[in-house]
Amino acid sequence: MAFEKVTRAQDYSKWYNNLVEDADLAQHSSVRGCMVIKPYGYAIWEKMQAELDRRFKETGHENAYFPLFVPKSLFEAEEKNAEGFAKECAVVTHYRLESDPDKPGKLRVDANAKLEEELIVRPTSEAIIWNTYKGWIQSYRDLPLLINQWANVVRWEMRTRLFLRTAEFLWQEGHTAHATKQEAIEETDQMVRVYEEFARNILAIPTIMGHKTESERFAGADDTLCIEGLMQDGKALQMGTSHFLGQNFAEAFDVKFATKEGKQEYVWATSWGVSTRLMGALIMTHSDDNGLVLPPKLAPFQVVMIPIYKGDEQKETVVARMKEIKAEIEAKGISVKLDDRDTQKPGWKFAEYELKGVPIRIAMGMRDLEAGNLELARRDTLEKKIYEQKDIANKVDHLLENIQNNLQQRAIDFREERTNKADSYDEFKTILKNKGGFIYAHWDGTAETEELIKKETKATIRCIPFTAKKEEGLCMVTGKHSAQRVIFAKAY
Amino acid sequence: MAFEKVTRAQDYSKWYNNLVEDADLAQHSSVRGCMVIKPYGYAIWEKMQAELDRRFKETGHENAYFPLFVPKSLFEAEEKNAEGFAKECAVVTHYRLESDPDKPGKLRVDANAKLEEELIVRPTSEAIIWNTYKGWIQSYRDLPLLINQWANVVRWEMRTRLFLRTAEFLWQEGHTAHATKQEAIEETDQMVRVYEEFARNILAIPTIMGHKTESERFAGADDTLCIEGLMQDGKALQMGTSHFLGQNFAEAFDVKFATKEGKQEYVWATSWGVSTRLMGALIMTHSDDNGLVLPPKLAPFQVVMIPIYKGDEQKETVVARMKEIKAEIEAKGISVKLDDRDTQKPGWKFAEYELKGVPIRIAMGMRDLEAGNLELARRDTLEKKIYEQKDIANKVDHLLENIQNNLQQRAIDFREERTNKADSYDEFKTILKNKGGFIYAHWDGTAETEELIKKETKATIRCIPFTAKKEEGLCMVTGKHSAQRVIFAKAY
Repeated sequence: MAFEKVTRAQDYSKWYNNLVEDADLAQHSSVRGCMVIKPYGYAIWEKMQAELDRRFKETGHENAYFPLFVPKSLFEAEEKNAEGFAKECAVVTHYRLESDPDKPGKLRVDANAKLEEELIVRPTSEAIIWNTYKGWIQSYRDLPLLINQWANVVRWEMRTRLFLRTAEFLWQEGHTAHATKQEAIEETDQMVRVYEEFARNILAIPTIMGHKTESERFAGADDTLCIEGLMQDGKALQMGTSHFLGQNFAEAFDVKFATKEGKQEYVWATSWGVSTRLMGALIMTHSDDNGLVLPPKLAPFQVVMIPIYKGDEQKETVVARMKEIKAEIEAKGISVKLDDRDTQKPGWKFAEYELKGVPIRIAMGMRDLEAGNLELARRDTLEKKIYEQKDIANKVDHLLENIQNNLQQRAIDFREERTNKADSYDEFKTILKNKGGFIYAHWDGTAETEELIKKETKATIRCIPFTAKKEEGLCMVTGKHSAQRVIFAKAY
Repeated sequence: MAFEKVTRAQDYSKWYNNLVEDADLAQHSSVRGCMVIKPYGYAIWEKMQAELDRRFKETGHENAYFPLFVPKSLFEAEEKNAEGFAKECAVVTHYRLESDPDKPGKLRVDANAKLEEELIVRPTSEAIIWNTYKGWIQSYRDLPLLINQWANVVRWEMRTRLFLRTAEFLWQEGHTAHATKQEAIEETDQMVRVYEEFARNILAIPTIMGHKTESERFAGADDTLCIEGLMQDGKALQMGTSHFLGQNFAEAFDVKFATKEGKQEYVWATSWGVSTRLMGALIMTHSDDNGLVLPPKLAPFQVVMIPIYKGDEQKETVVARMKEIKAEIEAKGISVKLDDRDTQKPGWKFAEYELKGVPIRIAMGMRDLEAGNLELARRDTLEKKIYEQKDIANKVDHLLENIQNNLQQRAIDFREERTNKADSYDEFKTILKNKGGFIYAHWDGTAETEELIKKETKATIRCIPFTAKKEEGLCMVTGKHSAQRVIFAKAY
């Protein structure tokens, strides 16, 4: 445990980086910008995957798998999409190595094994998937096509941060095809709502749903919906996006279908995704200066049990009783780890599991045992309390629910506290400087004004929210008409 | 349904290729050698993954994720491993595209964005993982390290076949580190046994466990254990491997640990994997000339229900009753699909689900309904029978178990029938020509003889089996001493 004690107040960014590494979530690798997701971090990601996957299947989607590589000629077919990703593409140019005659035991690229056409490592899979859908879609009977893929993608980012922005990341990407525009729009909307519900109930993170502005849209989309979370440093994090792709990819890949009436029409498309970036959101929303704080629904183990003893005889007695209690709690479907290692002292273990964000810690020594008690600490409030052992499984069960709800409520409260309205550009700048957070302000709807604000303040329009009242007003910068307030923030 | 009726006897290879595509399991993509795994095929793979993942976790392993790319200097560190994979490596050399000035709207590789060091797309992950383990292992307390990864890998194969040999495939790769040689050997052994049990009980495929000969070993391993299955054309298929890596990777990446006594020693390693190749094994072991035959434990849906009716009124009555029966069966934890589409006739549906290998088909018309009956067909034997609706859920449950067992038994019988001993090279050649299958024969233990046999007959030593009696004898080719019979076969 080399947790270097940097507080959020001292250096938020360093606090985050230390925490990710020290809590054994992820680390940098020898490959520029690529991370290793360590077992403890991956176990959290697996729980996210399971929750998301269930929701995708409940809404009628099936999983499939498409190639890692996209031939350049397919990649460039949808021009806006290609242009949007061209600057961050890893490119495979050769398919063989050979012994290096100048360096015994070393290899070099075999110049004779150059590919006729370069392969792009997928930064996103619209191109390869729509090229495949062409063969799958002939008539309205083949629609809708509701498919999701769990995969790795690569975007050659120059400035990377663990989970938040890495060259390779893990994600899911849904790609659906529909007979009508209306149906595709409804799918886009449905999936952003699936993300919002998942973030709220599983990650315990409240997010705001809305439309991206034109300049913040996914390359190749006619509309991008998103969920935006607010981190503890007052910066926003885009946590998931759902794109209405219109007929752009259908046209680029010539995917038409025969309608019931026998006409040939282009198919309507959506795509939507969330990634391991959600790990970053989770960490930054709930954790504190002592380490990670995990919502019970995502904790690899929800309860850790630590015996306190002197000598083998006491150990045997205490651990035996703890095993009984463990079995009782596990019978409720709760995951429990009993750490009875001799190699580490209780104090070390307390700090270790606090750092790792385990929601509940149970400790018990001989005196507790004899009194029929145990000590229970909750990670979210750091509160410690003596409980009777009687009916402990139910108590733990309720407490876990309570912790999940408390984390969510705390995040909601934080966001409310850091959400403000600005009615002038000066007020906007002052809020941004002093508090950060979400700022509801009027904007004239032009890319120019958006760009100016970004340049001057580093704040961007996070979204045009679904739920905001349609309160008309005047743009805080230009004084021109504004149809509704939009949400600004500095963002990751 | 464009299932082109080619029988196994007519053209086994074409039968396989047609089946994979027509049963909607997978298809070729626009990327040379890479496949698209379609939803129906992927659903089977997901079930395999869940079964394997549970077994890995039960034996103490955790999942993690390591980078897709391996820098060339790391890749070449373990020389034998590097040499073994060098000829089939996809290599990333650039990280950016730019607009092609000569072709408006097209892109080209940006020559200014050449990587200083080339990146190999992982053909296997020992190098990147052992380079990471170096930072994770300091003392005996850090061992054993028991980690698995679910990932895609790329091996640039020249001749590819769906599932059996593709440039990109999905797999899991376990990578463990141990303090002692003995413990690493036991892990290697444990994992090949996990594969054998999984193949037997879930895939319903009997396999033979054994050691690979030195020339068939994984590049960089001191010993390779494997499971070998026998396909219906009499050819063997290597279905999984577990490698004892000795200290080779620890030495190459300088991974030492402090023993309890305070000495510095190199760590002992294993790696083990199975891939989407198992899909090929599954298809080739059980399927017949009518299409796919799926073991109930892997079928995306285990029962399909098809209503027979004339007109809307009959449909409503029959479907309503079928929904009740469906709910009854599902209450047993059995997955059921009710296909009440009007767009296809019952005959079409019968053929479709037969092609897709659904273990049980239930059909019901008005006459059945009134008599309290239904028609049930099992896919493995193609047997049809009228059952009373009463207690149908239990009947289906038992039948599914029966089908799973029957498929396994059929595969065992087939293998027994195609397993022979040969006591002379002539006999060996005759059996190979007439029956194929596994041939137990004596071999002098040299790579030269092994190579000669391969060259003359195309048969290879599949393994030196664990269970064979230690019957000594004389090599069928050279007449030299042989410690035990080994298993030969032509193989995929």
